[in-house]
Amino acid sequence: MTPFLQLSLALAILIAAAKAGGYLSYRLGQPSVLGELLVGILLGPTLVDILHIPYFTDPHLPEVIHQMAEVGVLLLMFLVGLELHISDLAKTGKVAALAGILGVILPLIMGFGTGKVFDLPNTAAIFLGLILAATSVSISAQTLMELNVLRSRVGISLLGAAVFDDILVVLGLSLFTALVVTESPGGLATVLGVLGRMALYLGLAAASGWVALPKASRRISKLPVSQGLIAFTIVTLLLYGWAAEELGGMAAITGAFLAGLLFARSPVKQRIESGITALAYGLFVPIFFINVGLTADLRELLGDTFWLFAILAVVAMLGKIIGAGAGAFLGGLSRQESLQVGIGMMSRGEVGLIVATVGVAQGLIDEVVFAVVVGVVIITTLLTPPLLRASFANSKSSADRSKPENKSAAEGELE
Amino acid sequence: MTPFLQLSLALAILIAAAKAGGYLSYRLGQPSVLGELLVGILLGPTLVDILHIPYFTDPHLPEVIHQMAEVGVLLLMFLVGLELHISDLAKTGKVAALAGILGVILPLIMGFGTGKVFDLPNTAAIFLGLILAATSVSISAQTLMELNVLRSRVGISLLGAAVFDDILVVLGLSLFTALVVTESPGGLATVLGVLGRMALYLGLAAASGWVALPKASRRISKLPVSQGLIAFTIVTLLLYGWAAEELGGMAAITGAFLAGLLFARSPVKQRIESGITALAYGLFVPIFFINVGLTADLRELLGDTFWLFAILAVVAMLGKIIGAGAGAFLGGLSRQESLQVGIGMMSRGEVGLIVATVGVAQGLIDEVVFAVVVGVVIITTLLTPPLLRASFANSKSSADRSKPENKSAAEGELE
Repeated sequence: MTPFLQLSLALAILIAAAKAGGYLSYRLGQPSVLGELLVGILLGPTLVDILHIPYFTDPHLPEVIHQMAEVGVLLLMFLVGLELHISDLAKTGKVAALAGILGVILPLIMGFGTGKVFDLPNTAAIFLGLILAATSVSISAQTLMELNVLRSRVGISLLGAAVFDDILVVLGLSLFTALVVTESPGGLATVLGVLGRMALYLGLAAASGWVALPKASRRISKLPVSQGLIAFTIVTLLLYGWAAEELGGMAAITGAFLAGLLFARSPVKQRIESGITALAYGLFVPIFFINVGLTADLRELLGDTFWLFAILAVVAMLGKIIGAGAGAFLGGLSRQESLQVGIGMMSRGEVGLIVATVGVAQGLIDEVVFAVVVGVVIITTLLTPPLLRASFANSKSSADRSKPENKSAAEGELE
Repeated sequence: MTPFLQLSLALAILIAAAKAGGYLSYRLGQPSVLGELLVGILLGPTLVDILHIPYFTDPHLPEVIHQMAEVGVLLLMFLVGLELHISDLAKTGKVAALAGILGVILPLIMGFGTGKVFDLPNTAAIFLGLILAATSVSISAQTLMELNVLRSRVGISLLGAAVFDDILVVLGLSLFTALVVTESPGGLATVLGVLGRMALYLGLAAASGWVALPKASRRISKLPVSQGLIAFTIVTLLLYGWAAEELGGMAAITGAFLAGLLFARSPVKQRIESGITALAYGLFVPIFFINVGLTADLRELLGDTFWLFAILAVVAMLGKIIGAGAGAFLGGLSRQESLQVGIGMMSRGEVGLIVATVGVAQGLIDEVVFAVVVGVVIITTLLTPPLLRASFANSKSSADRSKPENKSAAEGELE
């Protein structure tokens, strides 16, 4: 059968399964994102291996689905940005900086230590630390939207800390590559170069988008172009994501998040949100959630590497909870809120995978360690929604819950 | 750069270019779909060849974009179906049947004759006729939506005729393959088998969807699942399209169109339409329009095969205008309306390409004839929007224009 027929059937199965899993999870009192992730594990190589049943003969099918999943995470982070106000982010700057910085340093040290305990060479051990320092808050943000606390002090601190985290990990990765891999003497020059690129991207993106995006979106919404506003939004968020990696050297999701923050200032924000939400939650985001499990075979973790995996997973979680949590506490959050920020930073998601892929490509870590790291990414991602939910169940009296008018369709399960 | 970064940039460029081309076309008094098609030619291998500039190193990029384009044509035909009422279609049954049947027979004979004039063997000449008998009304339907006459007598007859056309071409193709290619003696049995499969698919799809889809869509719209209704619609239309080809042996767009007709009966039709329209016109449909040009190098048609191409293009257009037009006229439409139906049937689109691909795969036509056929598909598709528009410009007094309340965002340029 043609590749497109195979894609049609695969998408239909995956979307239906993801939504069914999400609904079941919701009925059981858990965030729906947990159910969608678990359905992915179930349908992935760990059990059913749906994309390799005899009907699916197209070798590119997993790649096409993976690309659609990446569109999904961009749309998700865009909608997260769209929910916020830049002024909110500015208010929590100190907490975010402290949580971001300590949330990088502690996992870096603990990852290095774990590597040494398992007799890895110094470079591999440092690299392991760098991988554990990464974070991806897309799953946490989704969970917070479902709990309707994305715009609480915890939610905004978490999103700000993730931006700091992204910047620090990229800096660390660049510095490490320059000093250790290429053994170039210009460590400081490298860091300055990387910082310069980031500043250039963030400056250009913010400056060009601050006035122009709200203005352009209003004008385009009035043109006689079918869904011109939605097309404009998609084009812009793709370009912001692309430029974040290509020009800024950062993660594409940081760029999409930034685009969302800027579009939040648009007078036609409601129409943007309604269109992008249909696109995101009706098609791309369920594919992103389910694809996490489709790319991992958890059975591999039960073999020789089990102890490395188990210890690294615990280290990965404690590193973020203690590190980012301590940062948030020093920044002035309550003990409970700090714990919530720490748990929210646990999930490594695609950012951890990107760093790990760089390590394999440069020969710093081998395939065995890579498989373990993938397992750690999966397990931290899977545990984040239920742990976050539990941590919020104990703080019902929090004064900083999001405002009641902030009930959009993007906020998860209750449209 | 990673394949996803390349895809992000390519999609941003293509969507922006398509919308800009459509807007320009609209400003010049033409249907916007014409501008989107022309921009595709401009960016395709004929001139810029955008997908093969040095930045785009991923060999699978054109394939991923092609798959998204195919999702686009399914969404487009779904929205066309959603705009109609089944009772409308039933009313124009006789006109549709006559236009469909004569619109297949005349191009078949004329294509065979042209093949013989150019000294093709009998099998290749008959196959050429079969290719010219195909039709794809997605571009015509889009143009009619923009002219706000999709639900006129002409529009509905055209859509009905396209369904007859699809059935007849599939029957002809199956019979031809059975008798000529495999030389199996059971011609009648083959036809009965093909007819049986079609009847089974159409019967099952209509019976299962008639009551169940409207009911299920209402229930799902009330569930606490984010964009559950849109996800359900996408899953259903993908499955209907998939089953049309896989079970019914028909074109996937016929299945998507059928799904649209059935969802038109849903009490939550408005919400379905608003979500799918954002998805379709904001992302996938512009990719479909632009991808037509991305797959063709029109320069190739200026070489040795120019005369075959030119004559076949004229034959292709006259065959449909005279054949389908005469059928419509015999069915009781006015001379003007019959001409409009004939022009609307001209575009071969992806259905003509599918038939041609079968011919190449079975060695019935060679690469040269295939390139010519692709050129004919492009040229008939390009000429359909301006000719349709011109034919409607002369009939402003038509009594059968669509009702004023039928102004949805799906109707092209004026949301």
